[in-house]
Amino acid sequence: MSDRDWVHTDVGGASADSITIRGRDLATDLMGKVTFTELTFLLVQGRGATPQETALLDAVLVSLAEHGLTPTVLAARLTHAGAPESLQGAVAAGLLGAGSVFLGVVEDTAVFLERVVSAGGDLERAAADAVRSEIAAGSRIPGLGHPVHKSEDPRTPRIYAIAEQQGLVGPHLTALRLVSAAHREATGKALPINGAGVAGAALADLGFPARIVRGMALLARTAGLVAHLEEEQTHALGMQLFLDVERRAGG
Amino acid sequence: MSDRDWVHTDVGGASADSITIRGRDLATDLMGKVTFTELTFLLVQGRGATPQETALLDAVLVSLAEHGLTPTVLAARLTHAGAPESLQGAVAAGLLGAGSVFLGVVEDTAVFLERVVSAGGDLERAAADAVRSEIAAGSRIPGLGHPVHKSEDPRTPRIYAIAEQQGLVGPHLTALRLVSAAHREATGKALPINGAGVAGAALADLGFPARIVRGMALLARTAGLVAHLEEEQTHALGMQLFLDVERRAGG
Amino acid sequence: MSDRDWVHTDVGGASADSITIRGRDLATDLMGKVTFTELTFLLVQGRGATPQETALLDAVLVSLAEHGLTPTVLAARLTHAGAPESLQGAVAAGLLGAGSVFLGVVEDTAVFLERVVSAGGDLERAAADAVRSEIAAGSRIPGLGHPVHKSEDPRTPRIYAIAEQQGLVGPHLTALRLVSAAHREATGKALPINGAGVAGAALADLGFPARIVRGMALLARTAGLVAHLEEEQTHALGMQLFLDVERRAGG
Amino acid sequence: MSDRDWVHTDVGGASADSITIRGRDLATDLMGKVTFTELTFLLVQGRGATPQETALLDAVLVSLAEHGLTPTVLAARLTHAGAPESLQGAVAAGLLGAGSVFLGVVEDTAVFLERVVSAGGDLERAAADAVRSEIAAGSRIPGLGHPVHKSEDPRTPRIYAIAEQQGLVGPHLTALRLVSAAHREATGKALPINGAGVAGAALADLGFPARIVRGMALLARTAGLVAHLEEEQTHALGMQLFLDVERRAGG
Repeated sequence: MSDRDWVHTDVGGASADSITIRGRDLATDLMGKVTFTELTFLLVQGRGATPQETALLDAVLVSLAEHGLTPTVLAARLTHAGAPESLQGAVAAGLLGAGSVFLGVVEDTAVFLERVVSAGGDLERAAADAVRSEIAAGSRIPGLGHPVHKSEDPRTPRIYAIAEQQGLVGPHLTALRLVSAAHREATGKALPINGAGVAGAALADLGFPARIVRGMALLARTAGLVAHLEEEQTHALGMQLFLDVERRAGG
Repeated sequence: MSDRDWVHTDVGGASADSITIRGRDLATDLMGKVTFTELTFLLVQGRGATPQETALLDAVLVSLAEHGLTPTVLAARLTHAGAPESLQGAVAAGLLGAGSVFLGVVEDTAVFLERVVSAGGDLERAAADAVRSEIAAGSRIPGLGHPVHKSEDPRTPRIYAIAEQQGLVGPHLTALRLVSAAHREATGKALPINGAGVAGAALADLGFPARIVRGMALLARTAGLVAHLEEEQTHALGMQLFLDVERRAGG
Repeated sequence: MSDRDWVHTDVGGASADSITIRGRDLATDLMGKVTFTELTFLLVQGRGATPQETALLDAVLVSLAEHGLTPTVLAARLTHAGAPESLQGAVAAGLLGAGSVFLGVVEDTAVFLERVVSAGGDLERAAADAVRSEIAAGSRIPGLGHPVHKSEDPRTPRIYAIAEQQGLVGPHLTALRLVSAAHREATGKALPINGAGVAGAALADLGFPARIVRGMALLARTAGLVAHLEEEQTHALGMQLFLDVERRAGG
Repeated sequence: MSDRDWVHTDVGGASADSITIRGRDLATDLMGKVTFTELTFLLVQGRGATPQETALLDAVLVSLAEHGLTPTVLAARLTHAGAPESLQGAVAAGLLGAGSVFLGVVEDTAVFLERVVSAGGDLERAAADAVRSEIAAGSRIPGLGHPVHKSEDPRTPRIYAIAEQQGLVGPHLTALRLVSAAHREATGKALPINGAGVAGAALADLGFPARIVRGMALLARTAGLVAHLEEEQTHALGMQLFLDVERRAGG
């Protein structure tokens, strides 16, 4: 195999006098011309976003960036307490908790909805079938229910409203509502569509493959983590938390 | 000490029916109304950005997001080869290389320029003094020189042009040019201001404390890492790289 | 709930004049009296190991520590190239690739064998049934086959020999051989039991719960990673690898 | 440059039928013949340890493995709460806090003592000079003082006793006592030599370069982290800690 067959990326590259991203010149075509959100869309999907797509992607990223003193924020702040000289280590520690329990729901929902959408035929029936088979298997339906936002997640109606406004309610966002209705009908319980779930559906409708939508959630959360670490540098919650645990564990 | 004295963050929080970020309601005041870049500014600085500040911050984030097959991108792609089920682990591995050698320059430049700017008196003299003392100590001047972009880093004039356009050339961007000139005069060598350096200066002029500017670079690079990992999922450079190294090491 | 119900660990703790691990005094009962391997067994299982168990655990840890320039070692060395000041970041980056593709096999094998062993009845039949159902599902049998050690993994017969010598061939090691034979019979292909698989079986026979055996592999690999990073500090393979990739990608 | 000049490691490698570590055959020369501690010494230093060196290294690793609910343990357990499927992520998050504040002291002490020892001339005078210059610079002396073990760290006299017993009190352990005495004389305060400091001195006397001793501490702590994560799998302190913080922050 020749080198060029695998030592190669379509994402970007640099030569002595230029940097190229997805075939565009960074300095002349992108800087000052696209927002960071537009660049992210271009980087990951390889094509430019429409203004409508950018508006929805901005709303999704904004919705996922911050949720208070979550386990991942606490892990980042505790890591900073031990290694304040290595900001990248504290951010990385924060991202490492973005697994199956919390942010993984974004991906799980996108994967689940992709299955519903690609089943073909009537979407309502496909949603009902998928819900029934999850319930039969004893599995939770991804994207439904939230430990804090028990009756409604405030992010959900806003994402739907913005997607409608931008003409971007596609099959995944549609299917998610059908899934929620089918679940209510099958169980009698009204679990709200959560913010991670609606984000996964919107990202899928924006064209992001289900297997990468968790990456968009990681990007959004990085902004929140950086903000918490900035605060930690002057208001050391991490060290106080450790001392408090130590006192209570030993007491 | 009462709980509220330390178990507390000003960044954000969630209750049963709302999420608050820096005192704004996420669903009603932020989603659909601010871009992800504007939200990031608000999250980290605690105040909203002006349109001019947003334009410059967007340009800085765009400038730092991607630079081809860097060591950090390779680390992320190799990590994905071993743990494809854990996207957050691959992103975290990529961020962990954003230390003193590459992205740390953003912070080092901001710290150095903060020292120049806060010296008081004539800025040109302060820059010359700081350069002289670094040279005397055998240290490199942060923000000058680049292994690839040897004569000019294409990002640098663009950041200056955008900052001028937005009326945001502040003391740090000004000082960086004076530092570059002083270095040329002192050594006879014309090292270009590099993209990390100009980004650090611009972030400092945007009001980001020097100790957190590395966090903004981490955010920008996360977008590039996610794009590379999306590509890795279908074009497995990481595994090929390993097999190639193994073959050459054993041959 | 009272604090003591959850702010509590049985692993270890410290007071002003003593450190306690699993109820033993660190300074008087452990230091100078147990090896690091014996301490690890005590830490994770909460009981002291017999000399026979220690011998087998040592052999397993030794077998898993190092395997040349693996993807995880390359990721660690590339991370060090960018952040040499943060050794913990480079080690962490190296561990993050210990997922499903490579070291995860240790856990997968232990989980699979636990299923075979707990099926009850005749072990040979249980192994054959489990193999058949994996093949029918199109799944690979964990613990069989290796991309480099195609006919025999040199670690496998040694672990069996040491386990026999120590009288510690338990149900999992026994089941793994039956699984291998059943696979050969079902498919006609003679895949060797690999080093990760036999390690998983031995750790399960040593009493480690299947869900934590990956942790023992991580411990072993940390020793190898530290050795590679020590070498990287004077022989910078990571930076050379990056420059080589850059040259080939751009050429 | 030929490939073999840089695509090469002396640490270890694998061929189709053997694995080699530091020139020894893993299966025939190491497994069943050396302990994990002996292998670690061989991996990192490239030579086999004497029985005396092994005894001291075991004591050092045992002394550093576990210290209760430290910030790094809490970060690992919180990470596990969000990503229980990725044990390597939780271990990595735990290691990332092993920076300048806690475990970095092992390295800082080794570096400081290397400077004292290499100053030449009378060791007592070199220690006193080094202490004076640190005090004059307003710096803390690495290896002295501990927030919990205020009058004596129980690990310190044990390491000295074991080193004496093994005939391995070398220049670094000697210098550390002189540094402690010089500090007491210069300041009137009797700060105990802490466990991290004495570990750094012992590792330096064992021949580990100062720049890698932090790696040995990381290895030791990995054992403690794995034990905490095993406990976390059945006793979920991480999630409880998050819920407790959330309740207190919101209350």
